[in-house]
Amino acid sequence: MPRTQGGESVLSRAIRLLEAFGPGETTLSITELARRSALHVATASRLVEELCTLGWLERDERRKVQIGVRMWEMASRASPTLSLREAAMPVMEDLHAIVGQHIQLGVMEGDDVLFVERLTAPGAVINFTKVAGRLPLHASSAGLLLLAYAPLAQQERILRQPLEVFTENTINTPSELRTSLAEVRRLGYAFLPGHLHPDAAGIAVPVRDATGDVAAALAIVVPNEISARSHIVILQAASAAVSRAMRYPASPTL
Amino acid sequence: MPRTQGGESVLSRAIRLLEAFGPGETTLSITELARRSALHVATASRLVEELCTLGWLERDERRKVQIGVRMWEMASRASPTLSLREAAMPVMEDLHAIVGQHIQLGVMEGDDVLFVERLTAPGAVINFTKVAGRLPLHASSAGLLLLAYAPLAQQERILRQPLEVFTENTINTPSELRTSLAEVRRLGYAFLPGHLHPDAAGIAVPVRDATGDVAAALAIVVPNEISARSHIVILQAASAAVSRAMRYPASPTL
Repeated sequence: MPRTQGGESVLSRAIRLLEAFGPGETTLSITELARRSALHVATASRLVEELCTLGWLERDERRKVQIGVRMWEMASRASPTLSLREAAMPVMEDLHAIVGQHIQLGVMEGDDVLFVERLTAPGAVINFTKVAGRLPLHASSAGLLLLAYAPLAQQERILRQPLEVFTENTINTPSELRTSLAEVRRLGYAFLPGHLHPDAAGIAVPVRDATGDVAAALAIVVPNEISARSHIVILQAASAAVSRAMRYPASPTL
Repeated sequence: MPRTQGGESVLSRAIRLLEAFGPGETTLSITELARRSALHVATASRLVEELCTLGWLERDERRKVQIGVRMWEMASRASPTLSLREAAMPVMEDLHAIVGQHIQLGVMEGDDVLFVERLTAPGAVINFTKVAGRLPLHASSAGLLLLAYAPLAQQERILRQPLEVFTENTINTPSELRTSLAEVRRLGYAFLPGHLHPDAAGIAVPVRDATGDVAAALAIVVPNEISARSHIVILQAASAAVSRAMRYPASPTL
C-alpha cells in the first residue's frame, strides 16, 4: 500500500478510520466509516478488510464493523494510565461503598478532562461523565482542578477560548475563571455546585505522583444540597491514599 | 510507505509493534520494541515516529515509548464489550458492596477467558486476574463456565490440548474436563474450589444477551472455605439482573 498522491500514509488513514468509532456509535457501516473518516469507500473497505484480518476490527452478522476485542485488550493492558488506575481503584471502591455517590478519576488530555475510571451510584444524582468520556476543563470540578495545576500557557489558552455554558452557574467569563483557578490552588480542591447540571455538585481534589506533580483529579458528584461540601474531607483522605499508592511522599500539607 | 519485499503491509507491522506492549511492561525502548515485534530497529523507529505524531504512542522523558492516551481512549470508548460492561457494572458494584469479595466479568477471547471488568476487595483472598488479563478456560471458574456453553468444536479442541496444572485440584485430564463441563451445564454455574490457588474458590454464572446466548461469565473469588458455596445464589441473582439489562427475556429457568 503505497503513499497516496496527497502524501498521506496508510497508517495515518488507518488511524483516522479507527478514530471514527464512538463515542455513542460503536458499530458502523463501511459507508458511514468512510464518510466519518473522509476516505473513499474503496479505501475504507480495503483498510477494514486488512484490519479485520489482523483482529483489530470485527464484522457483526449485518456486516457492520466494530473495534475488535484484541484492540481493546491491547490498549487496556498497556494503558498509559494503568498504574494510576490500579493505585486509585481500591480507594475509589472503598469511597464508593462509604458514600454511595458517583466517584471518578480524570486526567488532562488535550484541553479536556478525560475520565479513566468511574464508579456509578444507582439512583444517585445525574452525572454526565463516562469512562473514556470527556468534559470541558472550565465546567467540571475535575477539569477545573486539573487546569488550576496546569502550565500557565494552557491556562492562558483556555482563558482566550469561548467558555461553553451549561447552567446559570457555569463559569463563563475569563475573569471568573481566573479567580476560580486561584481559589482552587489556594483551597486545594474544586467545588462546583450546579455548574454542569442544577441538581449536581462536583468536588475534585488532586492526586499526586512520585514527583509531586498533579497526575489526576479524584472527583465525586453529589446532590447539589447544603451538605454537599461535607464530602470534601473524605475525598481528600481518599486522594491522599491514592497519592501514597503512587509513591507521593505523604506530607501533612497535601 | 510501500509494502516490503516480504509482502507484509505497513499496517500489519504497525499493529505487530503496538501489540508488543504489555502485559506487565507498558514502557519499552525502541530496541526492545524492535526485538519483541521482530522488526528492524530502523523500521520500528520509523513506525514509532509516525505513531507518536498521530498521538497513538507517546515518549517519556527517557525517550522510552508507551501507548498514547488517545489510543486508550479510542479503544475504550468504542469497546466491543462496552454495552456488556455498562449493563454489568452497576450490578457488580452492588454485589461488591454486599459481599466484599473480588467480582469479575469475563468473555471468551480465543481459547482464553479475557476479563473486561473487575472489582477487587482490599484484604480479600488472593486473585490472579486483572482487567484485560487472561486465564486458561479449564482452570478458572469463568473460563469453565464459558467453555461449557461454547461450540462443541472449541470444547473438543481444548480437550485435545495439554491442561496446565496450578494446584492439586486443577482439572487436568480430558475425562475430568468433560465431566465438569456437563456438570456446569446441568447446574448452571461453575464452582472451582482451590483450582487456581489452594486458598481461593471461584464461582461463575452465565450472563445472557438478548438472543439468549451466553455473552459473558460473572464470577466471584472467595476464600476456599465450607461456606464458599453460599455465594452461588446471590451471584445468580446478580447475573439475572445483568442479563435483563442486556435485554435477555427474563425467565424462571435462567
